Amino acid sequence: MLTLRDYHLTLHDVADHQPEYLETIFSLANGHFGVRANDPITGNPITGTLINGFYETAPITYGEAGIGYATQHQTILNLPDFRHIHVATATGHDFTNSERTAVDLDLTTGALVEHYTLQTLQGETITMIMKSTIGQTQTEFWAASYSFMAANYAGGLVISKSIAVPAEAEAIASADPRKTRMAGLPICETEFMGRNLQRYHVKTRQTKQAVTIYLGMLTPGAGLLRQTVDLSDRVAHDLTYEVYVGAIGKQNTIDPAAPFMANSLSVLLADSRDFWQDVWNRSEVTVSGNDELDLAIHYNLFQLNQAAGRDGRTNIAAKGLSGSGYEGHYFWDTEMYMLPYFIYTNQQMARQLLLYRYQTLPKARQRARALGVAQGALFAWRTINGEEASAYFPAGTAQYHIDADVAYAVGKYYEITRDIDFIEQCGFEMVLETAHFWEEFGSWHQEGTESRFEFHTVTGPDEYTALVNNNYYTNRLAKHNFELVAYLAKEILKDDPQGLDKFGIGRADLDVFENLAEHVYLPYSEDLHINEQDDSFLSKPRWPVDRSTPENFPLLLHYHPLTIYRYQVAKQADTLLADYLFPEDLTDDQLKREYHYYEGVTTHDSSLSRSIFSILAARMGDPEKAYHYFMDTAQMDLVNLQKNTADGLHLANLGGSWLALVAGFSGFYVQDEVVHFTNHLPKEIHRLTYRMKIAASVLEIDLTATSTNVTVISGPIPTYGVSVNGHLISLEKVS
Amino acid sequence: MLTLRDYHLTLHDVADHQPEYLETIFSLANGHFGVRANDPITGNPITGTLINGFYETAPITYGEAGIGYATQHQTILNLPDFRHIHVATATGHDFTNSERTAVDLDLTTGALVEHYTLQTLQGETITMIMKSTIGQTQTEFWAASYSFMAANYAGGLVISKSIAVPAEAEAIASADPRKTRMAGLPICETEFMGRNLQRYHVKTRQTKQAVTIYLGMLTPGAGLLRQTVDLSDRVAHDLTYEVYVGAIGKQNTIDPAAPFMANSLSVLLADSRDFWQDVWNRSEVTVSGNDELDLAIHYNLFQLNQAAGRDGRTNIAAKGLSGSGYEGHYFWDTEMYMLPYFIYTNQQMARQLLLYRYQTLPKARQRARALGVAQGALFAWRTINGEEASAYFPAGTAQYHIDADVAYAVGKYYEITRDIDFIEQCGFEMVLETAHFWEEFGSWHQEGTESRFEFHTVTGPDEYTALVNNNYYTNRLAKHNFELVAYLAKEILKDDPQGLDKFGIGRADLDVFENLAEHVYLPYSEDLHINEQDDSFLSKPRWPVDRSTPENFPLLLHYHPLTIYRYQVAKQADTLLADYLFPEDLTDDQLKREYHYYEGVTTHDSSLSRSIFSILAARMGDPEKAYHYFMDTAQMDLVNLQKNTADGLHLANLGGSWLALVAGFSGFYVQDEVVHFTNHLPKEIHRLTYRMKIAASVLEIDLTATSTNVTVISGPIPTYGVSVNGHLISLEKVS
Repeated sequence: MLTLRDYHLTLHDVADHQPEYLETIFSLANGHFGVRANDPITGNPITGTLINGFYETAPITYGEAGIGYATQHQTILNLPDFRHIHVATATGHDFTNSERTAVDLDLTTGALVEHYTLQTLQGETITMIMKSTIGQTQTEFWAASYSFMAANYAGGLVISKSIAVPAEAEAIASADPRKTRMAGLPICETEFMGRNLQRYHVKTRQTKQAVTIYLGMLTPGAGLLRQTVDLSDRVAHDLTYEVYVGAIGKQNTIDPAAPFMANSLSVLLADSRDFWQDVWNRSEVTVSGNDELDLAIHYNLFQLNQAAGRDGRTNIAAKGLSGSGYEGHYFWDTEMYMLPYFIYTNQQMARQLLLYRYQTLPKARQRARALGVAQGALFAWRTINGEEASAYFPAGTAQYHIDADVAYAVGKYYEITRDIDFIEQCGFEMVLETAHFWEEFGSWHQEGTESRFEFHTVTGPDEYTALVNNNYYTNRLAKHNFELVAYLAKEILKDDPQGLDKFGIGRADLDVFENLAEHVYLPYSEDLHINEQDDSFLSKPRWPVDRSTPENFPLLLHYHPLTIYRYQVAKQADTLLADYLFPEDLTDDQLKREYHYYEGVTTHDSSLSRSIFSILAARMGDPEKAYHYFMDTAQMDLVNLQKNTADGLHLANLGGSWLALVAGFSGFYVQDEVVHFTNHLPKEIHRLTYRMKIAASVLEIDLTATSTNVTVISGPIPTYGVSVNGHLISLEKVS
Repeated sequence: MLTLRDYHLTLHDVADHQPEYLETIFSLANGHFGVRANDPITGNPITGTLINGFYETAPITYGEAGIGYATQHQTILNLPDFRHIHVATATGHDFTNSERTAVDLDLTTGALVEHYTLQTLQGETITMIMKSTIGQTQTEFWAASYSFMAANYAGGLVISKSIAVPAEAEAIASADPRKTRMAGLPICETEFMGRNLQRYHVKTRQTKQAVTIYLGMLTPGAGLLRQTVDLSDRVAHDLTYEVYVGAIGKQNTIDPAAPFMANSLSVLLADSRDFWQDVWNRSEVTVSGNDELDLAIHYNLFQLNQAAGRDGRTNIAAKGLSGSGYEGHYFWDTEMYMLPYFIYTNQQMARQLLLYRYQTLPKARQRARALGVAQGALFAWRTINGEEASAYFPAGTAQYHIDADVAYAVGKYYEITRDIDFIEQCGFEMVLETAHFWEEFGSWHQEGTESRFEFHTVTGPDEYTALVNNNYYTNRLAKHNFELVAYLAKEILKDDPQGLDKFGIGRADLDVFENLAEHVYLPYSEDLHINEQDDSFLSKPRWPVDRSTPENFPLLLHYHPLTIYRYQVAKQADTLLADYLFPEDLTDDQLKREYHYYEGVTTHDSSLSRSIFSILAARMGDPEKAYHYFMDTAQMDLVNLQKNTADGLHLANLGGSWLALVAGFSGFYVQDEVVHFTNHLPKEIHRLTYRMKIAASVLEIDLTATSTNVTVISGPIPTYGVSVNGHLISLEKVS
């Protein structure tokens, strides 16, 4: 198990874990690219390096195609593996066997240290220690040093470094939709530029992306392909290599010597340390009472920061840059599970992530047309380049709620930043276009004397229920989308009385949106006194008890979708997700009824589920249940709960674990310009301390069983209200 | 347009039609194989000969696969084209250009005569008349003669006959799900067995089927590859060739001379004439008042008889043997649209068609397990070999109603034949296994004080509405399935008190089925006082008027399924199809309301729709509307109404046109051992006369505007009741 030493993730029982798990867990990334911790001797042919947004397309083949179907797969590419090294004895025996014996990832500096025992077929054994890091502000750099020490072999070594170019692999045929497909590999040309420098030109065949990768070595007189060291003196011999990854989309023609000089391993280590120092200053979360948990939450935030694209043109893939599961696609997970962490700790990053969505708006408009909606925009359900890449539309494109999720995120960003410039330049257009989509997509239905605005044939977050009418979550979020467009329009008008002109709407349009918001139908069961997941969910039979033993889960890997769909069974929080987002909607009693009901029909087969169940349990005053769900959330990948961490980390869940602490145990939410905190700490957590930024103020929130303190760490005393345990308080600044 | 001469389908304006249309319309078949009327000089690389049940498989590729999905495409194969001939002048100029100038198909004999003008590149022109027929009891034979006459060229001709083997073609990528896929072509080896005999061995690669085709020429001294004739005498020169198509599944080692001697063109013409004589004796339908219509209905029955597999191992493909659309698959269309014609005119054929379904029962049991249903059987939605081949399950496998359709057909067969042996040997097992499926598939739901047995997440006949709850048609047919199993069980017990033992059920099980039948929920709108197509259909918005211009239809070729599904729009009769099957269910007023309502939301984009609308209009007392729908039904392929006759005939509609006459205009239905006829003749039809067989009696029904006569043509005076225009009558035998 994990052991804690400051914030080091240290593993000594390496042999107990499958290599692919370790490669994911100890992957390094910087938002631009990621390097899985592949064994540097034996490698992993499936995945090595992943560049955010560097992908290939291939036609989607349908058994039976239809009009408007997504046409192209988009697949993040398996790129050359930087970590590869070749070691042989002076007598020509290759070290072909490699065993990783210990790994240490320093979450406070980003330094990764790994110990290997290498062996030749002849039984000669040496020890190798690899130290690597990735540039965090210098996001085009990665560097590593390899140290060699004698074990039963103490003679000369011949070492050559190159970058392992993946071989053309068989297409992966899998019935597991969570895995990646194998796209056509890129063209990779290797060019030698002197004995200590190589260049790799990588070009995709279809998307015509290109990147240049340099591998260099700063050691004077050294050569990449043949370094000799002598282990007979039994001291460690270090060799250090630097890698420069050019920007995507252009052939780099840099002078390779200059950046390498400026970004040696030691420089990158300092760069990385500074970056993480800043991250922890902004978003430190300390959990006392359970060291493993404290480490896990640090690990989660570390990986969340590693995964997030920072350039406004890339986003956070479902697996980040830690693996190629889900093909490197971006989903709604970003807005609903990961963005909150950034909104409340790093507003600039949050803005960049929203900008990515904004730049896909033209394609979202086209997609709305393809789905038969004459106005507005429909964001792609899963995508890299903004085009829909979902090859199974009932659980993909039919999740129209992504539109309202994006709008919701824009609203939350504005609520806390008051960044009216962003709203006027980008944010409002997204909220308006999604509202226009809902306006045309929905329809009026008269039920008795009631005029309802309804949404038909949609799939909500729960992918075990597809193509239903009036999914509560979808409808509730669409209602919010209508409210938000009216609200933001008024904010723009306050800032600039002509501010709406360029959007082609006026005050009359706001009345239309407000009227729609008022009439969006929200299904409610008069029998059970709870919100209904959709018009028919509650009338379906429950999943049979005799198919509820562990080997039947996750259901999607054991049952035909038709079988799953016809039961009242949910993959994840759906109506409860709306309850979490809109706590003002329901009384404590109704929340308890809903929670109890939906908990009974939810399998948590999605990694997006437990965090929400944890938050609501905390709010309901059941901190022990909240803690139980939270522990699974916090350690999901570290303990390989879903058994597919090998494919990459569950990024949304990483964000969800932060939400569980903040929105759950500390009861954080914002409504009507009041920031609420409520102490829901479970007994297992003795103390919870974390930081967040609201407007220009950095707050520190500190909870124990008996105290709840909120203080201003930096920035002005905030002008908004702060409520602690139900009482408005005045904040003071810690000097 | 068509002109009538006895029952000849004669076309003089050939040039006005696309070749593929003519190839379909004038295709010859005999249930075992079909020969499209390809141009014998230029051919058609896509489709020539189709053997019923001779197919290839290929893995289905899904953009995103899932558990339990159909795994293999099944595709009827494009086999060598028998009609091909090569003609050249004695000086070596090939006749490469061919124009079909007239075609005549004699529906009373099955003889096809075609006139061609052939031309060389040098402008030499001759006339060729091709006469061909297919064996109808000798179902392994086809024969043709080619006559040559001088036109502007009057010298020597060199003629060689072979069978055109299709070349490997590109895979067809099409977004039209009604077309075929291109399967891997079979291996075809040609073997010369002397100058007047060739043998073709055709083997499939995956399904390991094999067939041997012989091409022979009886003319003494003639040779297949080089025949010379001299046109200078300006009389016609005939050359006659015979083709023997071996049985599927084995390599034939016949003495080829013997069957050829016995099955020359003249012998086959006699065989064919006798067969058609028998068909018309059994099922003659004469419509006076509109010759085109009279011809069309003969044509439809001609093609229906040509298409139907007669061996108990094959069935009727959606396109029969006239084209490769829908990949040669068998659907529910057989039981619900085509089988009634056979049940009431040719009981032996009806039994064979039901036997096909019976022999797929083991695979249907497996399919039920794959769909998560622990008992019973689920017949494949589309198949050749009995395995599910639907690659788009929401409009395929989800149409569970096929189970109840098969059961319904078994019941109708028994109702009229009282063939208890068939029930005990095959029929009851199908009805029991489908009833067991429904029992496990459905679920109890308490609504107020009402206990309902419901069926969730199904697709009804209307493919424009998918994955809904309590589809009225499905539920009504499942209810009937439950009733039928109890009824047939009692019939078996009457025949043999131990008759149920081998099925493992007793009288207590019948109570269970009867209880289920009683509680199957049938959705009904209290607002509109009509049966609801499903739980949510009536709450959806109607299809927008601005998308209802002709260029938007068929919707499936212009809109994403998600767009279509979210509207209240039906591809075809759905609830109304149930109303047609169970006229006792509703009052005339309710029928009128339902008809009016559903007519307003139905596009008739399916060829299964108009016949049902015609029948119900007739029953409702609106014969003019019935006639309008009927005319589109009767001439659907002849006028290429759906614009895809090139892919093959719409076989279900051919059966539907017979139903429209019989169940519509003559108001035929059977209930509680009474056969009902009601005169609903429209004014455009002066007289309708047809024959049908009930039990052992052949009846002739004769309707005019003022009279309705039913007489016994052969067999005993029936023991069942006969009702004419609402009054029970006594039949008399015409002597």
